[in-house]
Amino acid sequence: MTQVTRHRVVIVGGGFGGLYAAQALGRAPLDLTVVDRRNFHLFQPLLYQVATGGLSPGDIASPLRAVLKWQENATVLLGEMVDLEPERREVILSDGVLPYDTLVLAAGATHHYFGNDAWAALAPGLKTIEDATEIRRRVFLAFEAAEREPDPERRRAWLTFAIVGAGPTGVELAGALAEIANETLRHDFRHIDSREAGILLVEGAERVLPPYHPDLSAKAASALEGLGVIVLTGAMVSALDEDGLTLRRGATTERVRARTVLWAAGVQASPLGKVLERRVGASLDRIGRVVVGPDLAVPGHPELFVIGDLAHCADAEGKPLPGVAPVAMQQGRWVADLIQARCEGRTVDERFRYRDRGSMATIGRAKAVADLGWVRFGGPPAWFAWVFIHLLYLVEFENRLLVLAQWAWNYVTWNRGARLITGTNPLPLATGAAPDGRPGMRQAS
Amino acid sequence: MTQVTRHRVVIVGGGFGGLYAAQALGRAPLDLTVVDRRNFHLFQPLLYQVATGGLSPGDIASPLRAVLKWQENATVLLGEMVDLEPERREVILSDGVLPYDTLVLAAGATHHYFGNDAWAALAPGLKTIEDATEIRRRVFLAFEAAEREPDPERRRAWLTFAIVGAGPTGVELAGALAEIANETLRHDFRHIDSREAGILLVEGAERVLPPYHPDLSAKAASALEGLGVIVLTGAMVSALDEDGLTLRRGATTERVRARTVLWAAGVQASPLGKVLERRVGASLDRIGRVVVGPDLAVPGHPELFVIGDLAHCADAEGKPLPGVAPVAMQQGRWVADLIQARCEGRTVDERFRYRDRGSMATIGRAKAVADLGWVRFGGPPAWFAWVFIHLLYLVEFENRLLVLAQWAWNYVTWNRGARLITGTNPLPLATGAAPDGRPGMRQAS
Repeated sequence: MTQVTRHRVVIVGGGFGGLYAAQALGRAPLDLTVVDRRNFHLFQPLLYQVATGGLSPGDIASPLRAVLKWQENATVLLGEMVDLEPERREVILSDGVLPYDTLVLAAGATHHYFGNDAWAALAPGLKTIEDATEIRRRVFLAFEAAEREPDPERRRAWLTFAIVGAGPTGVELAGALAEIANETLRHDFRHIDSREAGILLVEGAERVLPPYHPDLSAKAASALEGLGVIVLTGAMVSALDEDGLTLRRGATTERVRARTVLWAAGVQASPLGKVLERRVGASLDRIGRVVVGPDLAVPGHPELFVIGDLAHCADAEGKPLPGVAPVAMQQGRWVADLIQARCEGRTVDERFRYRDRGSMATIGRAKAVADLGWVRFGGPPAWFAWVFIHLLYLVEFENRLLVLAQWAWNYVTWNRGARLITGTNPLPLATGAAPDGRPGMRQAS
Repeated sequence: MTQVTRHRVVIVGGGFGGLYAAQALGRAPLDLTVVDRRNFHLFQPLLYQVATGGLSPGDIASPLRAVLKWQENATVLLGEMVDLEPERREVILSDGVLPYDTLVLAAGATHHYFGNDAWAALAPGLKTIEDATEIRRRVFLAFEAAEREPDPERRRAWLTFAIVGAGPTGVELAGALAEIANETLRHDFRHIDSREAGILLVEGAERVLPPYHPDLSAKAASALEGLGVIVLTGAMVSALDEDGLTLRRGATTERVRARTVLWAAGVQASPLGKVLERRVGASLDRIGRVVVGPDLAVPGHPELFVIGDLAHCADAEGKPLPGVAPVAMQQGRWVADLIQARCEGRTVDERFRYRDRGSMATIGRAKAVADLGWVRFGGPPAWFAWVFIHLLYLVEFENRLLVLAQWAWNYVTWNRGARLITGTNPLPLATGAAPDGRPGMRQAS
């Protein structure tokens, strides 16, 4: 019934790297298995929109099976890789074993709290759908708690939002929170003025968007300040608890009361990096990424590719490529081509080169910055470019349609209709209660 | 600063009853407070679409604050009523106290497992957004587990879905599951044929949609059977566990292996009914609803209204009105008018009369049944009527737009793009694993 054994490719991870590799292997005569712990591809660049109630999870997630259903050589497997047997060429799943001839590891990255793991519960990061709905819950619950809090000091703490880390995600979150406070919720409350919310953007480096050109950092900072965001650069978090955070700036230390702290500061590679270190002696960098050769394979293991956020891939100057979607996409496609070339016995240039088409970050409504290498600009043109590119790269046409409709609506109305407080324990506001137990009872007077 | 004290109306619950009452009090010169545990109004008639991946939670939920933001007499309070002090006219919240002159209780209903509370964890019901995403998780995870299950018996158990209760929700769930199996997932898997899934609809009465006219029950049953649903009427669940359920039909007992059991069988009123029983001696019916007088107030307490699913309101023949959205909407509007009339000292007819405009249920794509009293019909006309009415009653225009776009897309493509498996523990499939621990490894051979 079956033909003679075909080359078996296993891809672990259905993010940008893994999915683009899988799709680029579309018509190749091989057996492809895509393994992911989740049943969907997530468009992470728009996750902050879910966290701020602008989009729904379904708008930015595509079932992997739906994306690959017509690709006949592809099998999708819901599963979690936990180990590797390189000699037997087997991926060990939490509940099974999967043989491969070529393995592509694209398992991505997670949050990094610089050794303060207890901070994870206090200041959620933004990597998964669950992270996004948890941040959404905290943000909108904070306004609810402020509305019911009679004590001005405690009210202020509920209305203070601190975002740690001013990379693209931190900047996007800060801008969206400012718009929520200034516009979306402006007429929603009776006891508070949502515009009084304080939004702090805390960055350890000397400017926001540190990897970008200083011109764009300045443009972004001034756009954020125009929205009322307080930008604190050169500031490190030295302590964090339920009631706020302590910042160290140079020799001074400052205490900020903030009931909502969001973490956009550090990432570390998937723990699968450590599996490769243990099993094939791969080198890991400081944040746990696997150092790969120019062919994106683990040195000495041409059948073992690592791409995307899990890979430490040096550019021409020896600097590692950034952990952004375009790098993962290009690596995915390139590895797919290389695998096909090797299967067919073709000789190709086995050195991956990243083609940097530029970078951008959005701050809010008609506010963004873009750097295309040969030109840098901000304002509405950058924002329209951002909107266009993000719509373009959404995997499914359905999602493009829905996101476009939702964005157009949000733009016209300033609304964010997906601001649902969900989860197993949406109440009580608890700690916001006044000592007499009558927090919400202030009359409008 | 404040004017002379205005009449204080408190509405507990932001469902159909509470929200329609609040909106009907729009321009009344009184102080209105709407209390809800959740920050959104949920359009429950479409919840089954979220449970089956056709719509996202945000599509059918509207932030209560957004809906009422321009209504100046209204304050929205996120809070949970736990008790009542009728003499002091105070609502006791879990974290505060709220005084009222008139109280409208519209706290709705929850699932009822007929004394088998342990069944709740085994067979989730469908009342909240969290219920819907949990059902969605179980349904789509079951197909994933089947894909990885080498043992044919166990695979069949994963591919068997039992829905207990053939009221409108049960019928809608069964129809949607059949479409998912027959069409949506048809090309998604490599080891199973999703069309082999067995969908059982279990009903204790002798026909589906028992409260409807027998003609419609017959039409609905035949439409369901056309989709491959196995309709089991006159069947009671006598046992339920992780692996399936035991049905009693007359004198015979039957064991069905089914890994996914959904509960659409019974409701009971909110526990706030018991609070009224304890505090003002209200009578409760068998399912915990508060027996109200013709004015929808607790007898002897004209300031204490109960509406919607929490109320037992007898019609002209002494039968209680059904727990459906139109009853709650009409009661909400009617109570609002009565409150205003009383405030203004006007005399009105203080007897609520339900105007039954008919009932309908959808089975699937272009399949529905409708009963308008003077005419009963099925097929595409009923389905279009169903679509039109559900779009019409979605509270926000934004949601109408998004649901229409999503439905049009789903209709053309048979897709259900929101079929995300989310939650804190989406994996492992665990119990589906074969004894050798290698469940997913069957090759396509």
